[in-house]
Amino acid sequence: MPEPQTPKRPIWFDTDSGCVHIIDQRKLPREMVIEALETVDETIFAIGSLMVRGAPLIGVTGAYGLYLAAKNAKTDFPSDDYLIREARRIKDARPTAVNLAWAVDRALAVILARETGQARIDAAKNEAAAIAEEEAANSRNIGLHGLTLIEQLSAEKGGARVNILTHCNAGRLACIELGTATAPVYAAHEKGIGVHVWVDETRPLNQGSCLTAWELGMENVPHSVIADNTGGHLMQHGMVDIVIVGSDRSTLTGDVANKIGTYLKALAARDNNVPFYVALPSSTFDRHIRDGVRDIPIEQRDPDEVRYMPGCARTDTNLLVPKNSTAANYAFDVTPARLVTGFITERGICRAEESAIRAMLDENP
Amino acid sequence: MPEPQTPKRPIWFDTDSGCVHIIDQRKLPREMVIEALETVDETIFAIGSLMVRGAPLIGVTGAYGLYLAAKNAKTDFPSDDYLIREARRIKDARPTAVNLAWAVDRALAVILARETGQARIDAAKNEAAAIAEEEAANSRNIGLHGLTLIEQLSAEKGGARVNILTHCNAGRLACIELGTATAPVYAAHEKGIGVHVWVDETRPLNQGSCLTAWELGMENVPHSVIADNTGGHLMQHGMVDIVIVGSDRSTLTGDVANKIGTYLKALAARDNNVPFYVALPSSTFDRHIRDGVRDIPIEQRDPDEVRYMPGCARTDTNLLVPKNSTAANYAFDVTPARLVTGFITERGICRAEESAIRAMLDENP
Repeated sequence: MPEPQTPKRPIWFDTDSGCVHIIDQRKLPREMVIEALETVDETIFAIGSLMVRGAPLIGVTGAYGLYLAAKNAKTDFPSDDYLIREARRIKDARPTAVNLAWAVDRALAVILARETGQARIDAAKNEAAAIAEEEAANSRNIGLHGLTLIEQLSAEKGGARVNILTHCNAGRLACIELGTATAPVYAAHEKGIGVHVWVDETRPLNQGSCLTAWELGMENVPHSVIADNTGGHLMQHGMVDIVIVGSDRSTLTGDVANKIGTYLKALAARDNNVPFYVALPSSTFDRHIRDGVRDIPIEQRDPDEVRYMPGCARTDTNLLVPKNSTAANYAFDVTPARLVTGFITERGICRAEESAIRAMLDENP
Repeated sequence: MPEPQTPKRPIWFDTDSGCVHIIDQRKLPREMVIEALETVDETIFAIGSLMVRGAPLIGVTGAYGLYLAAKNAKTDFPSDDYLIREARRIKDARPTAVNLAWAVDRALAVILARETGQARIDAAKNEAAAIAEEEAANSRNIGLHGLTLIEQLSAEKGGARVNILTHCNAGRLACIELGTATAPVYAAHEKGIGVHVWVDETRPLNQGSCLTAWELGMENVPHSVIADNTGGHLMQHGMVDIVIVGSDRSTLTGDVANKIGTYLKALAARDNNVPFYVALPSSTFDRHIRDGVRDIPIEQRDPDEVRYMPGCARTDTNLLVPKNSTAANYAFDVTPARLVTGFITERGICRAEESAIRAMLDENP
């Protein structure tokens, strides 16, 4: 059987089968495995087990999950109670990224406004597709806004290549197209601006070395994988011109939850006057939390993700630690606004200050 | 064949065979493999390939290497030229830790003062053994001085357990006994003070998860392995009371070269008012360099240490990155003195300031 071609997106609705299709990102870069999601339970498993991951992508996946709930309802008319209950189950699949709840709630509101079973199913499918298209457009616009930063650095360096450090995967695999943190990189590369990306490996699940390096390689973007420990040294020696990361949830006050370890890179960037930008769609802002460090819930995952080699069977041979040693596995940390140079959103670039963020989001304080 | 018992030290002179014996630390925690060093080339290979590692230990190993040079000389009287040349080769095995050059030069000076072949061989063996005993005594004293810090934290917490974060392995395996960073932990644990160690995995070579976790486990010291990304989050949430790390080279001005990633933890400690201590014997101070960030040579190792799973054959199956992705592998970074709360040495504890360091080392400015 020929290996499946690389799909353009990490999630799509397959009209032939009526299923939602995803890339199983746990298998990359070794294998390109495409899975069909047919039920809410499969959707929850896909999100919880990180077959799909990344804030914008799990939002879209969650919305499609609600479509599967409506479609699979045991009654002709999927009731409000049933849909609200299924929405809650999907939203609980992962706690930190706000996009999941945001997308599911948005789809739910649209569905509940419909009065026949088929209208609810159709609305669910259309809303999930609409969110996906909006996120794709967001990434394109994030790319265009972020491009200006890279162009400026390139000019300041007299055209020498711009070194961008990124953490985890906020790339096309985490989004629908182009990514958030990577969108400006792809835009610059496409425009012929010399770029090189320092790719943090991103332990324990290696989203950097497995996913970001893979997608940069597919687009022939020069990059080097580094241990997560390395960024500070590089910044001390002028080898990083800008840090761009994604976010799983940011507050209107400018605090940024992102993959564990992001905070350490923000500290190093500040200590070395390296600009530190967070690229994210507006949907990643949480309007209800003001103190990110205190109040954003941080997912704790299975310690065995730290204890065993990533992507391998959990056998004694694949243990990375002594058999009796325990591990702790906090999946995210929060970078305080004071360490963030700015946000790159689909609407433009702004400082990490409440007034600037609200103005950009066109919201009143 | 029964598995070899765990030796008390990571290096020792075996009087029966006349060889130097070491633990092959690349094999831990999976296997306890003991190797004999019979030549200078074997010694250089053992140091360069990290069969032995850790600043005090590679110093002692280097000194024993010079003994092997004297013993294996093709002439009855190992000449000055020959010994100086062999000393240079040994010192070049690794660039960052100053203890290697310090111990080899110290042994060389003693040997060159002897006037017969046998006297040179005996002096070489005795000096290496003397350095080993001194480093063992240093560790015991570092433990006693550092213990006071942990006792104080324990008292401040009303006896609740003290959480210590450490990076890499500055433990008994890196030294001769007890370690540097771990010596205060062992002293506290032995005294019945509740301690828990956050063990940074320490990518790319996993000295934390493979060596520190192993030796803490052997002594039943409570510990949890964490991804290197995690320490900042823990400190933000009050889960780290003190950071203690070792050093491969420190300046009299207080800059600290240590395993890559140490600087990031120092930044996080400063940002969260967590005391950040460096435990080291006086032999780790380099009297010739004033600006650590600028002038301490930072070893770059094989990128494949980042690209392949640690401790595994370098086959496609064990690749951690896409096949065509490159990697960079800087082995150390430098933490500026301004981020260091203090040094714990065999002579006592002092602030990371030149006057205090010189006073402790009993040196005039």
